[in-house]
Amino acid sequence: MENFNYYIPTKILFGKGKIKSLGKEASKYGKNILMVYGKGSIFKENCYGTSLYQQAKESLEEAGLTIFELPDIDPNPRIESVYEGAKLCRDCKIDLVLAIGGGSTIDCAKAIAGQAKYEGDIWKCYESKDPRPLQEVLPIASILTVSATGSEMNGNSVISNLSCHKKIGLSTSKFRPVFSILDPSYTFTVNRKQTASGCVDIMSHIFEQYFTPDHGGYLQNRTMEGVLKTVIHYAPIALEHPDNYEARANLMWASTWALNDMFEKGKIPTDWATHQMEHELSAFYDITHGIGLGILTPYWMKYVLSEENRHRFVDYGREVWKLTGSEEEIAEGSIQKTREFFTSLGIPARLQEVGIGEENLEAMAKQATQQGPLGAMKELYEEDVLAILKMAL
Amino acid sequence: MENFNYYIPTKILFGKGKIKSLGKEASKYGKNILMVYGKGSIFKENCYGTSLYQQAKESLEEAGLTIFELPDIDPNPRIESVYEGAKLCRDCKIDLVLAIGGGSTIDCAKAIAGQAKYEGDIWKCYESKDPRPLQEVLPIASILTVSATGSEMNGNSVISNLSCHKKIGLSTSKFRPVFSILDPSYTFTVNRKQTASGCVDIMSHIFEQYFTPDHGGYLQNRTMEGVLKTVIHYAPIALEHPDNYEARANLMWASTWALNDMFEKGKIPTDWATHQMEHELSAFYDITHGIGLGILTPYWMKYVLSEENRHRFVDYGREVWKLTGSEEEIAEGSIQKTREFFTSLGIPARLQEVGIGEENLEAMAKQATQQGPLGAMKELYEEDVLAILKMAL
Repeated sequence: MENFNYYIPTKILFGKGKIKSLGKEASKYGKNILMVYGKGSIFKENCYGTSLYQQAKESLEEAGLTIFELPDIDPNPRIESVYEGAKLCRDCKIDLVLAIGGGSTIDCAKAIAGQAKYEGDIWKCYESKDPRPLQEVLPIASILTVSATGSEMNGNSVISNLSCHKKIGLSTSKFRPVFSILDPSYTFTVNRKQTASGCVDIMSHIFEQYFTPDHGGYLQNRTMEGVLKTVIHYAPIALEHPDNYEARANLMWASTWALNDMFEKGKIPTDWATHQMEHELSAFYDITHGIGLGILTPYWMKYVLSEENRHRFVDYGREVWKLTGSEEEIAEGSIQKTREFFTSLGIPARLQEVGIGEENLEAMAKQATQQGPLGAMKELYEEDVLAILKMAL
Repeated sequence: MENFNYYIPTKILFGKGKIKSLGKEASKYGKNILMVYGKGSIFKENCYGTSLYQQAKESLEEAGLTIFELPDIDPNPRIESVYEGAKLCRDCKIDLVLAIGGGSTIDCAKAIAGQAKYEGDIWKCYESKDPRPLQEVLPIASILTVSATGSEMNGNSVISNLSCHKKIGLSTSKFRPVFSILDPSYTFTVNRKQTASGCVDIMSHIFEQYFTPDHGGYLQNRTMEGVLKTVIHYAPIALEHPDNYEARANLMWASTWALNDMFEKGKIPTDWATHQMEHELSAFYDITHGIGLGILTPYWMKYVLSEENRHRFVDYGREVWKLTGSEEEIAEGSIQKTREFFTSLGIPARLQEVGIGEENLEAMAKQATQQGPLGAMKELYEEDVLAILKMAL
């Protein structure tokens, strides 16, 4: 096991009705709250017979807090929203940036909280993947409405700049929310497509940390298999019965743990090639992140599988899919099972199904590998990425 | 899944040579450090060619800190040591109580940190299991030398009062260490018996949270199975090769997670009957905690297994032991496997093997159930506890 420091001080308030604690928790950070949210789902009537917007507002107002708002955050959040939010923070002396939504909204809130306290252009930090210039960041909190990215308990933020076809992630412990409210009931209204892509995203986060060429990280791998089994068990139930609380609760808590540092600690290097390839798809075509991941993952698996790293696929096949047979059969079978499962969730298997043709494959392969080869299971150079994208076509 | 709040702000410094960060971390809390440790193992030469005592002292002194010492903490730490340590804290204006040792030493440091800031008698808090009178507690840190109790990242403390044959646990978030140094190399010198009982303790902590009669907690159960698999995989390796770093590292990180609130959150009620019964064995006979747990656990499993809760044993047998067959066979087989595994580690199977006869069984059963029945899988009254103790004789 590799050396590591582990420190995750985000407070999680999990369960039905936890919104009631919002005002009390938020008031620990100051008076002025910026509510950052998306394109309207928080105004819809929810299972509490009101809207999340209304519930949040009531709890904050009861605690005597002043609310400012930044609506209309995009699914792949834009740098323009970040600048707008940061200006609001400065003009209104914001004390806490409260994201209400899924990973995109939370990621955007993090960038806003960073830009608000930073004189320079935060996009340059994203471009250089260097958070060090961000010496101070406003406190961030979240109310989660989609189970997928884990942004509610980690320090990651992915921002898109469509003007230059770039979608880049930045990671710093300063971006970790001070608290997050996780009420699975808020995900009852997440539609089939978003639920399915969220589940793929959770599994992909695990894959990126599970599929490493080393033989270490036993504890991490065995517990990650537990998270995979959970998603495989509950994703179909959530699609079939969108208001099944137990399914939504397990998926939500699984999504948080799939990417909050826990599993990565002690395991180095992790992979992340699939995510980096998918970022190019989203940057060029603005497609749903989980859909892109679902298309690419099994092709990536096929491409990187080798005699040296087969042991990891064998573990995956045996423990998660209960496959038996020769090691070769189990490894191949585990990839097949992964594709079948994604298909059963309604995830396309080819880029063409989401409107992506040959036109930008080379440009995307080039951009994906601009800062060097991707991945750890197998180092992927420009030609490798292009080969995988062509397989996926 | 049940509602919960999750907040574990303990910072973990994990791996080889992490002791070098001790001084810097400790200095965040003040100048005066009380080092609390056991009966001499920290003075033995370790794999760094020096002693842990020397390493700790050097790092603290380099940071300009003043060291005070409380040696000779017992394996089942006594309330007398707590009073002595608390007096030292007051007399020397201690800023941080630093435990160096296993769970007993850390548990004792927690009680010292509590008593130091409390005018009343902290034993009364243990007796009433009510931490609320402890409004303030000195900061606690630890350097772990035995993988077992999880005390390094949780708020639990168990203290013994031999004058009244009582061993009682108290739990409060105020007892959670501010930081813990986990260097698996420090456990290379833990002997066979202590290594084996530590492994049983880790597994027992998982059992207490895994064996619940409910059908929920899927994610928690699947990830707990991962921890059990890890201990089953690495315990024999650590016994065979005491300086196998990977084995010691996995066992150490597993011990921390097995009891730091993570798995319990969302699962209510957890069981803890076996631990409460074992506390009576230790209180009456001062035996090693893990040995007592190892003897009792399979008898407890046999006693509580019923048609209603069989599903949990079936999960356990299938996922952890890869058993096949009818549900009855898998459930029975999983108990058999547990006993065989404990025996393979050198853990006795009967109370008589550790010098416990019939003489106090009734008194122990009575005391164990003094505050009501034990357990959740099956409510255990005085006569049930007595029946289990007799099975174990």
